[in-house]
Amino acid sequence: MKAAISSLISFRNFDLHEPSLSRSIFRQLSLLLPSQFPVISTDAKVYGANFTNLHQKFRFHSIKTSPIMASSFNPERATSPPAVPPPVPPVTKFKIGLCQLMATPDKQRNIEHARKAIEEAVGKGAKLVVLPEIWNVPYSPDSVSLYAEDIEAGGEASPSTAMLSEVSRRLKVTIVGGSIVERSGDKIYNTCCVFGTDGNMKAKHRKIHLFDIDIPGKITFIESKAVAAGQTPTVVDTEVGRIGIGICYDIRFPELAMIYAARGAHLICCPGAFNMTTGPLHWELLQRARAVDNLLYVATCSRARGVDDSYVAWGHSTLVGPFGEVLATTEHDEAIIISEIDYSLIELRRTNLPLLKQKRGDLYQLVDVQRLKSE
Amino acid sequence: MKAAISSLISFRNFDLHEPSLSRSIFRQLSLLLPSQFPVISTDAKVYGANFTNLHQKFRFHSIKTSPIMASSFNPERATSPPAVPPPVPPVTKFKIGLCQLMATPDKQRNIEHARKAIEEAVGKGAKLVVLPEIWNVPYSPDSVSLYAEDIEAGGEASPSTAMLSEVSRRLKVTIVGGSIVERSGDKIYNTCCVFGTDGNMKAKHRKIHLFDIDIPGKITFIESKAVAAGQTPTVVDTEVGRIGIGICYDIRFPELAMIYAARGAHLICCPGAFNMTTGPLHWELLQRARAVDNLLYVATCSRARGVDDSYVAWGHSTLVGPFGEVLATTEHDEAIIISEIDYSLIELRRTNLPLLKQKRGDLYQLVDVQRLKSE
Repeated sequence: MKAAISSLISFRNFDLHEPSLSRSIFRQLSLLLPSQFPVISTDAKVYGANFTNLHQKFRFHSIKTSPIMASSFNPERATSPPAVPPPVPPVTKFKIGLCQLMATPDKQRNIEHARKAIEEAVGKGAKLVVLPEIWNVPYSPDSVSLYAEDIEAGGEASPSTAMLSEVSRRLKVTIVGGSIVERSGDKIYNTCCVFGTDGNMKAKHRKIHLFDIDIPGKITFIESKAVAAGQTPTVVDTEVGRIGIGICYDIRFPELAMIYAARGAHLICCPGAFNMTTGPLHWELLQRARAVDNLLYVATCSRARGVDDSYVAWGHSTLVGPFGEVLATTEHDEAIIISEIDYSLIELRRTNLPLLKQKRGDLYQLVDVQRLKSE
Repeated sequence: MKAAISSLISFRNFDLHEPSLSRSIFRQLSLLLPSQFPVISTDAKVYGANFTNLHQKFRFHSIKTSPIMASSFNPERATSPPAVPPPVPPVTKFKIGLCQLMATPDKQRNIEHARKAIEEAVGKGAKLVVLPEIWNVPYSPDSVSLYAEDIEAGGEASPSTAMLSEVSRRLKVTIVGGSIVERSGDKIYNTCCVFGTDGNMKAKHRKIHLFDIDIPGKITFIESKAVAAGQTPTVVDTEVGRIGIGICYDIRFPELAMIYAARGAHLICCPGAFNMTTGPLHWELLQRARAVDNLLYVATCSRARGVDDSYVAWGHSTLVGPFGEVLATTEHDEAIIISEIDYSLIELRRTNLPLLKQKRGDLYQLVDVQRLKSE
């Protein structure tokens, strides 16, 4: 278990471009763009998620571009709506705990085991704890409905989230609760619940991109046979910063991480369970790419590897810094990784490597459909 | 020097989604989208580049989605205009040569040295040769204008491209000619020229994203002090497939690779020269990420490292396959990498991992501004 100690640097909001919007852009694109966006001291909203703290004060400043990087490049238009900077977080530097756990066929045992793991992580100083994808039962598309919980009903209908709520309130810790199988009406989802330090559920992310993969002789898994896809990207303001949520296969889609960055996320948390084929090929690569392309933190938490499991997980839960650096990781056995996050590094790296000011909004634009629709 | 031998698999165009466009999308976004796009046997155009072979026959088919991946997810809308599949390439399997060369202060020597390297690569079977970024002179923003060539005037005004034209015609080889300093009117560009087997220049890519970076004590380089940015993404149809061009820092922007993939590129070629700070941190990571996220080939060619250079290059020219696998690479000295490309792997990987059919066009959309404008 490795721990990363980062130097403390005072945190300030990074700059956003003051727009000088040209009228020369062709008609259809210009209709997508707001004709103005706020420049100084405004309320910015982040949309499309089930979270309670939608409004957050931001400060916007003029960008300092180099002489030749003319405003006609429109970096602020590279995302639509324009990107908002990360808010000032409630805490800049804190410890995260990644609990890489085995999921046995005994659900009650798994719930108690996870409770103890969270307690241990908090005992070691973690202010944010992340669990794996489907940590409470073995995961197979053929049997998911047997284990589904009704999260909205709560209580006895959802013992796994009841435990997460109890622990988060008792220990005053933020929990990204991996994922569990959710039943909602006649649908089944793969769902991540985020609990605040008051024990309330702050967000619920249903896996957006389902794992339908066919590598003959290696791995074939058709998650969409049994599970419905979520309809909403999720960004949530917590006591440990603004967090974008993905579940496992969601990490393969660069667009999702990019719209989370544009919504001002400090951190992307991705509970997962890559397998023995795609794990060694892509697990670390994808985490590092999402981090460095968006200059933010990425934390993943995998199930531990059970050699008798029908689905054998790769393990290797990891914390990645905003330069794509692996700050802490582990092998495939059960482990609790404790490592330090320092959000001031986000601003530092964005100053070192001002990618977000250098995008070419005159040539490409990523549209965040739900956020745009909400404006 | 490693060589990759891939199994031969028959190449067919991969499927694109037959659209079932919903009218429920909000007004602004729907205005961005064509109300129809061709479904069977049509001419598709690839826009925005200086290349000669703009029109290419494609076949489109209905996509086979899983039962639950409903058409309301609109994967075909995840890029605007909708993605086109790679065309059937003139050759499916061929050798590429990456000439990692030193750039000395003696320009004439560098030109002759590059000529010999291309001849050697072709002698070893290469049908496509890639040179490094600014391979013909030492590169410093303070002195670039001294070395600039007038590519459009050609002949004695551009001895470097004259050599590339002569060699490509004589040896019937496609050359992605790294980059040279170009003077055009009163502007200076960092420009990559692509030559076909007839010796004609098929494309000219001017670096779109300029390298303005400041990591105190490590590397500070403000390319935009001396160089103007290109205004056009470049995709070119060659005798060795459809190639998207980036130069060095261009590789940091995932949007560019994504619009190249959506234009049907088989391969992204990126002449570059990462440095001793960003090289070990990000050079291989970025290449592998662009390849696996877009399921296509990525080839990079760096300058060799000169320890007395004012800008010390990282080297490590690399060929990456469509699963992000490093197929061939080298260290920092001069080297000619010969490795095999097999475009049939693109279809295989896109069948294994159908990411491009699983994108959520109902949640995000990447707009290729110039291609959309051209339609």
